[in-house]
Amino acid sequence: MRQLPSVSLDEAREIIAAGENKAREVGQPANIAVVDAGGNLVAHARMDGAWIGSIDISINKAFTARAFDTQTGDLADNAQPGSQFFGIHVSNRGRVMVFAGGIPLQRDGQVVGAVGVSGGTGEQDQAIAEAAVAAFRPEG
Amino acid sequence: MRQLPSVSLDEAREIIAAGENKAREVGQPANIAVVDAGGNLVAHARMDGAWIGSIDISINKAFTARAFDTQTGDLADNAQPGSQFFGIHVSNRGRVMVFAGGIPLQRDGQVVGAVGVSGGTGEQDQAIAEAAVAAFRPEG
Amino acid sequence: MRQLPSVSLDEAREIIAAGENKAREVGQPANIAVVDAGGNLVAHARMDGAWIGSIDISINKAFTARAFDTQTGDLADNAQPGSQFFGIHVSNRGRVMVFAGGIPLQRDGQVVGAVGVSGGTGEQDQAIAEAAVAAFRPEG
Amino acid sequence: MRQLPSVSLDEAREIIAAGENKAREVGQPANIAVVDAGGNLVAHARMDGAWIGSIDISINKAFTARAFDTQTGDLADNAQPGSQFFGIHVSNRGRVMVFAGGIPLQRDGQVVGAVGVSGGTGEQDQAIAEAAVAAFRPEG
Repeated sequence: MRQLPSVSLDEAREIIAAGENKAREVGQPANIAVVDAGGNLVAHARMDGAWIGSIDISINKAFTARAFDTQTGDLADNAQPGSQFFGIHVSNRGRVMVFAGGIPLQRDGQVVGAVGVSGGTGEQDQAIAEAAVAAFRPEG
Repeated sequence: MRQLPSVSLDEAREIIAAGENKAREVGQPANIAVVDAGGNLVAHARMDGAWIGSIDISINKAFTARAFDTQTGDLADNAQPGSQFFGIHVSNRGRVMVFAGGIPLQRDGQVVGAVGVSGGTGEQDQAIAEAAVAAFRPEG
Repeated sequence: MRQLPSVSLDEAREIIAAGENKAREVGQPANIAVVDAGGNLVAHARMDGAWIGSIDISINKAFTARAFDTQTGDLADNAQPGSQFFGIHVSNRGRVMVFAGGIPLQRDGQVVGAVGVSGGTGEQDQAIAEAAVAAFRPEG
Repeated sequence: MRQLPSVSLDEAREIIAAGENKAREVGQPANIAVVDAGGNLVAHARMDGAWIGSIDISINKAFTARAFDTQTGDLADNAQPGSQFFGIHVSNRGRVMVFAGGIPLQRDGQVVGAVGVSGGTGEQDQAIAEAAVAAFRPEG
């Protein structure tokens, strides 16, 4: 048997709330999604005025960050033409997002889920995702 | 010009919270989703322990209820073999859910969004969806 | 935090081996798949001569059994025309299999994964899946 | 009439076992998949802790290596922008993986299947795939 520690709905909401606060500070409404250790959606919120095309992207950035235990912004570097993972963006039925805004949630050195943000520039999405993750208490 | 009155994120959250309360009362954790007037996801929550197969279903029950301005439980009657809409469940790339748990959100006689619930029996999902909708104030 | 106890690769292999033994006894080569607590594939085996169309079905029967914490044969009853979940088979991007052969793996009252079998009649698939699950030790 | 010499389940398991040994040596858990002469999955294993996003990739690297009778790492060179096969990665419904880790299985000069590995860097995946293929006896 393996144990997969995983984020709860209450924790997902704290994470999203922190992301929303940052999004308001940045002045860019966003979609924010949290997936659990299995890569499955726990919660999603689209702030009023945020792009509808970003619903799917936020959920799949979170999926990607958990699917490969990596920040999607780091995956971006490896997914460019000529790089080692070029082409990975068509795998997993189009669910792999290879640009900034997805970050794994870790506790005690294990990935327990991930957050995905989409709604603005890569820089804005990343900043909001980082603020969201920072709300996740690192200790059990 | 047209105006599309639509549910806000704050309202979606109140709707979901009311659904969660009912789910706890019923003793059945559920996925609850709210879409706006455009049929696009505003917010989703999966209660701890709720089925992962119901993530997609809750979101698409809400989509369906807004897509056809009908309760999905009512659509069910018309989607059976021999009925007038049999086959509708394969339209819209598999997003049309033809069983109970999706209900339009109305205000001033207009559909402004919808809620979708999935996690238990059809009866449970419907009861939770009704409790969720009841939290939506009928007046502007 | 939530804890998701989940089946390991070693356990998945014991489960598949038991299924293969039963398939040989039944005289019907089969595809056998095991998913973890997150519904994600852990291991798959197609016995020589088993249907290639059953690769996808075995994997998705396992997914379905975990996605709804139910035997796919039980879901079948509820997915028929006129029943409460008619239409569920088009949800989840075509991954929901509503006929016998998928069974959840449980330990200490929790679903920790699932097995899916496809290759013969519903009765054969179910018998093989039951033999596979029986190889999963119920205690931690 | 044609004969399609093809890898058996027993052989697929030896190939996967050899890949797992290499993965342990490399210190990188991986997904390992084997397809037959028809490009259809024979067996798959996800080592404990390996990426869930790599399930699909390992299976499709194996598919790709058989689909074009080429190493996916070699296909990569031809799939870059400006190269002769740029765009091939969106063919076959997203099943063509154009980065290292997929290798055809050959016997008596014929391709009889392929192996696909995903779980680490391109270099790691390729090394594991090579070790897996090396376990396949070149003579009949």
